[in-house]
Amino acid sequence: MSAVAPAPLPPPSGVISLLTDFGVSDPFVGVMTGVILSCFPGARVVDLGHGIRPQAIAEGAFWLERCYRWFPRGTVHVAVVDPGVGSERRALAAAIDGHYFVLPDNGLLGPALLAAPGARVLALDVAQLGLPEPSFTFHGRDVFAPVAGGLASGARSFDSLGVPAVALPSALPRAARTPDGVRGEVICSDHYGNLISNVDGPLARSSGATHVHVGGQRVPWRRTYADAAPGELLGLVNAFGVIEIALRDGSAERHLGLTRGAPVELIAPAPAPAR
Amino acid sequence: MSAVAPAPLPPPSGVISLLTDFGVSDPFVGVMTGVILSCFPGARVVDLGHGIRPQAIAEGAFWLERCYRWFPRGTVHVAVVDPGVGSERRALAAAIDGHYFVLPDNGLLGPALLAAPGARVLALDVAQLGLPEPSFTFHGRDVFAPVAGGLASGARSFDSLGVPAVALPSALPRAARTPDGVRGEVICSDHYGNLISNVDGPLARSSGATHVHVGGQRVPWRRTYADAAPGELLGLVNAFGVIEIALRDGSAERHLGLTRGAPVELIAPAPAPAR
Amino acid sequence: MSAVAPAPLPPPSGVISLLTDFGVSDPFVGVMTGVILSCFPGARVVDLGHGIRPQAIAEGAFWLERCYRWFPRGTVHVAVVDPGVGSERRALAAAIDGHYFVLPDNGLLGPALLAAPGARVLALDVAQLGLPEPSFTFHGRDVFAPVAGGLASGARSFDSLGVPAVALPSALPRAARTPDGVRGEVICSDHYGNLISNVDGPLARSSGATHVHVGGQRVPWRRTYADAAPGELLGLVNAFGVIEIALRDGSAERHLGLTRGAPVELIAPAPAPAR
Repeated sequence: MSAVAPAPLPPPSGVISLLTDFGVSDPFVGVMTGVILSCFPGARVVDLGHGIRPQAIAEGAFWLERCYRWFPRGTVHVAVVDPGVGSERRALAAAIDGHYFVLPDNGLLGPALLAAPGARVLALDVAQLGLPEPSFTFHGRDVFAPVAGGLASGARSFDSLGVPAVALPSALPRAARTPDGVRGEVICSDHYGNLISNVDGPLARSSGATHVHVGGQRVPWRRTYADAAPGELLGLVNAFGVIEIALRDGSAERHLGLTRGAPVELIAPAPAPAR
Repeated sequence: MSAVAPAPLPPPSGVISLLTDFGVSDPFVGVMTGVILSCFPGARVVDLGHGIRPQAIAEGAFWLERCYRWFPRGTVHVAVVDPGVGSERRALAAAIDGHYFVLPDNGLLGPALLAAPGARVLALDVAQLGLPEPSFTFHGRDVFAPVAGGLASGARSFDSLGVPAVALPSALPRAARTPDGVRGEVICSDHYGNLISNVDGPLARSSGATHVHVGGQRVPWRRTYADAAPGELLGLVNAFGVIEIALRDGSAERHLGLTRGAPVELIAPAPAPAR
Repeated sequence: MSAVAPAPLPPPSGVISLLTDFGVSDPFVGVMTGVILSCFPGARVVDLGHGIRPQAIAEGAFWLERCYRWFPRGTVHVAVVDPGVGSERRALAAAIDGHYFVLPDNGLLGPALLAAPGARVLALDVAQLGLPEPSFTFHGRDVFAPVAGGLASGARSFDSLGVPAVALPSALPRAARTPDGVRGEVICSDHYGNLISNVDGPLARSSGATHVHVGGQRVPWRRTYADAAPGELLGLVNAFGVIEIALRDGSAERHLGLTRGAPVELIAPAPAPAR
């Protein structure tokens, strides 16, 4: 039993966000949206994003945890990065920090979400939900979409969805202090080739570092892209609150030849020698 | 004259789905959506998908036929894969199985849609629709979007759109029985590199086969991805009801070096020799 | 002071279009949409497009100027191609030709928009808008989205947003007459590999030319794609009113090996020799 009382459930906002690794070349997202509108005609469905790399659960966990707060309170966030679809993996619904989440139980909830005060997690009781028999390969359409639609419309209450459960640990690795400072890793790159790490701003600042060490380079820590000269590498705390490595007007990913998993370090300056 | 009476027309749901080969790098889809909202401010426009390969009518026909049913009854589905735009090719509106379709007459309706009981097809009488003079190259914006908006809002009745017509045959090839079992072909690949065929589940099961023959390989038929070991090829009946060839946690397309048109066969097991 | 009185401001339509260079692989657009719905739950948000090449302001200016008119009068168009984010560059709101625009002041307004009769441009007074402290790198989310939401909902009046200003000149180059005819350049290519120029139809026609000179080739000017044989190059005035070079059923971009900036010329036929 948690020391914190469960937070009251927010009224649904009618907004449903979708975050998947489906890409945008196939009609998978469109079909999920069709299903949502079939059970909740007034739904406002937002594509949070479908460019999570196939099966990259950590990347999905990162973006879900960093993005949900920009939506209206009471939004239902559906996240589907689901290599275990059709196996025994469980499906979850969660109510955390004024938002709802519907997703497979495979580590897609980030560590901050799991640790949020008053967080509630249910294991979906799929057989009891009155859904048509789901396919073995597309629970985004057959389970998560109708559950999200029912939750967002108010036709299904959160508590009716399943039984209290403990989610699997997050797939998102955490940055950590080291004797020298702080060490994290690249979680993903974005469309511009910026390398995005799991080192958050307060932790980074606590190191006292003025540079970011990545790919064998020592990169100056700046405020924004325009503070670097064209073609210059820089580190910054990005708009999602974590250390990012960028190349002004270019691609840091291509320039450094790095990808996810590459270490990112902030090393404290050596103390001034005693006089 | 059909032996089946035309089905009653469903009331429009207010939902419009868009399926095109426009891709998502240009503002073509956004402009179509702007036109729809200009003539029907309450429209709920869903991107069913824009990743049909350029000019791949068969691929568009496949997805349209496999996806429409996941939308609310009374949805207007706009499909634009239209290499003949600006030529003499006709434009169609159809009412089939409780849904509306607006599209060029070039084979984009699949064989099951064309054969559905009570299906109604009209050739659009574009000159009589009161539209501004269409461009020669973008009827998605100039013809199909305003017709769909008018139909979805109720401002235009289905019967007012044109005159009864017979659509051109479907561009989607059909799988067929062979002396040995069933033979179809790869219609497209998806974002994960799964190869999607035109062999539907009941036909495949009727062969009695336990494996799928594709690209010179004999691939075991499984229930879902998680039933195969990582790196292993498998066949399955996917969530759209057809045989798909996948590589667990990888790309079957890249692994097999196959593309659309590649044969997919299910071969009946040889009968046990007589004793 | 302009010779033309400012046009009356249109009532907001409730539609917000988004045009960016964010791509669709990251959740940046989804988060902007979440912010818009947080401040205006009834917003209808349309992705005009997110495939502008990174930092290609001229390409953004081209599409914004060519597309806005297809949306309902009173739409708020948010355009974000913003390499100077976090620097001293200003942010603008504009009311032009019955539409609103919210965007950085870096040349994203095209020449026709800037010259439209009655156009009004304001420099946003960001500090006075009551927004949370913006990040240094994502004003799409922190400035442009909430301003657009407030403007589209009516919660913020246009005049409350800032002070009258003169926008920077457009980044979009203009085609021009030459002694021989007309000369422009390729602004971008589309999904099909069509090369899109800045030579508009009336200017092109005024040259009297029958061919388009591009990449060392003399390409016949046709009406639509279907007027050329498969594999043949053609020029045409496309649905956005400018000269485009296409390859029937193929990619002119790949075939010609050209990219943006390549000259596009229409050369007047030599007068018939005097008898």
